[in-house]
Amino acid sequence: MAPFKVTFLGPAASFSHQAAVETFGRSSELIPCLSFADAIAAVQRRDADYAIVPFENSTNGSVVQTLDLLVDRNGSYNDVKVCGEYYLTVHHCLLARKGFISAARRNYSSITKIYTHPQAWGQCEIFLAKYFKGVERQDVSSTSKASETVLKTTSEVNAAIASRFAGEYYGLDILEENIEDTANNTTRFLVLRNVYSTTTIQFQPELARELSKSPAVLETKKALFSFMVRQDTLGTLADALLIFKDRGLNLTSINTRPSHIQAWKYVFLVESETDQNQEVPDIMDSLRKVTENCKHLGTWANKLVST
Amino acid sequence: MAPFKVTFLGPAASFSHQAAVETFGRSSELIPCLSFADAIAAVQRRDADYAIVPFENSTNGSVVQTLDLLVDRNGSYNDVKVCGEYYLTVHHCLLARKGFISAARRNYSSITKIYTHPQAWGQCEIFLAKYFKGVERQDVSSTSKASETVLKTTSEVNAAIASRFAGEYYGLDILEENIEDTANNTTRFLVLRNVYSTTTIQFQPELARELSKSPAVLETKKALFSFMVRQDTLGTLADALLIFKDRGLNLTSINTRPSHIQAWKYVFLVESETDQNQEVPDIMDSLRKVTENCKHLGTWANKLVST
Repeated sequence: MAPFKVTFLGPAASFSHQAAVETFGRSSELIPCLSFADAIAAVQRRDADYAIVPFENSTNGSVVQTLDLLVDRNGSYNDVKVCGEYYLTVHHCLLARKGFISAARRNYSSITKIYTHPQAWGQCEIFLAKYFKGVERQDVSSTSKASETVLKTTSEVNAAIASRFAGEYYGLDILEENIEDTANNTTRFLVLRNVYSTTTIQFQPELARELSKSPAVLETKKALFSFMVRQDTLGTLADALLIFKDRGLNLTSINTRPSHIQAWKYVFLVESETDQNQEVPDIMDSLRKVTENCKHLGTWANKLVST
Repeated sequence: MAPFKVTFLGPAASFSHQAAVETFGRSSELIPCLSFADAIAAVQRRDADYAIVPFENSTNGSVVQTLDLLVDRNGSYNDVKVCGEYYLTVHHCLLARKGFISAARRNYSSITKIYTHPQAWGQCEIFLAKYFKGVERQDVSSTSKASETVLKTTSEVNAAIASRFAGEYYGLDILEENIEDTANNTTRFLVLRNVYSTTTIQFQPELARELSKSPAVLETKKALFSFMVRQDTLGTLADALLIFKDRGLNLTSINTRPSHIQAWKYVFLVESETDQNQEVPDIMDSLRKVTENCKHLGTWANKLVST
């Protein structure tokens, strides 16, 4: 069987790239895209088998661009559905050019400049205060860009803050690992496929290269629905959510986006745990009675490890 | 009485500045801040009487930074509450240096470069395609920055896309008005005050300088609540929303943000119509029974004009 073609938001060595490698393995054909829309459009056209896109981060919240693509106001991605998820814990490393700085003694005094994405400074404050007080900080557009810059800028003694994945991709030395202040900064990615594809299947955990490393996963599934609420009736959102409660199904996320049909009219994205696929048609029947334009956006195996 | 001190997100001539002028009038002391947090912190310290911050845009959705400040995870703004709202319709103009280009004949062929914020290009595509096909486009950080740049860059024949407010602020000619593709791109601002302030009062519509221009407003109020949902019980969010439905109160917005207490545990911000202030203690009593950490973040006059 030919390897899967998987699209993700570039550049190379981004967190999306890392999620794609950890989910599909390096033997898959991993295709960096310039935007989330490009990644998903390739699946709609069936130029790619899967897309993997970030859905939410445990610290920063939902990824609005992904929500808007799932809402799909213009019907551009009618055949694309969610078929899996992957949780990636974000770890930061201190990286330098190969053989340039000895990590053994933490002798970092020669480093005069550090590159990373603006968000990463705040995530590594304790480490930076301890070893790099007063050292120049240069913002770049991504942590993978920081790694690339350190590789290419040989006129100074510098370092990057980025993932181990980016360090290995660019062949840098990993001077320190897990320099982030707090653990558990995690991004949840969704895996998307085309429902008419014959080469792909509903995403199965055994496809994940890293499965053997994962702790036991819950045996539940999740399903994602979108709908709009009629404005002329009272308490419709409560009615819609009761459909899930009445079936004993916990909600796992809820998001709202502007409908673009009328100002202050919203599309709701409601994600729920579900025990069996058979529940979905029943939920959809009930949603149709109280909401507008409701869609089932996919069902997949719940990969959140119970804590 | 001394004029009110009102903080907003700068720079000068931003949409927040415009909202501040239209709400409080030019006789108020309007103070540009570097961040939303600075604007709100000044109200907490009572260095300012009011802050005005964007809450949501009808096209782009909620303003996440404002949501996070309202959630106030560290209790930094305990005394700040919402006391009013203002709807600002976003209109774009084509602006040029005074007397530089004749607007009368729409003879724009001498213009070689246009400056604006990246979002504005997409909002003015029809106008740009008609008059400025192939003309160089330069992104800048805000539409007010675009106006300032056009004023100061005299070495070229250029124009900015920005608000009439920014054009007048920088003394530019307004060559065209309302060049946006679709009407009704509206931003809702919230007005915040310190509950212990003796100089400010619950924001009243008559404070608004522009009131006489406004159509009749609905006689309802809105109230904003935040809470977390217990994870060990089923359907708690539905139960929380039923509290509003059972009282005949329509929800006007719902948002979720990460709690930062535990990954995938969320804070909900629920806004509802309400007829009378007396309902709030009763709603809070009911919310406390089914949710955690619930707060009432303010009650104010509904300014949404019924369409």
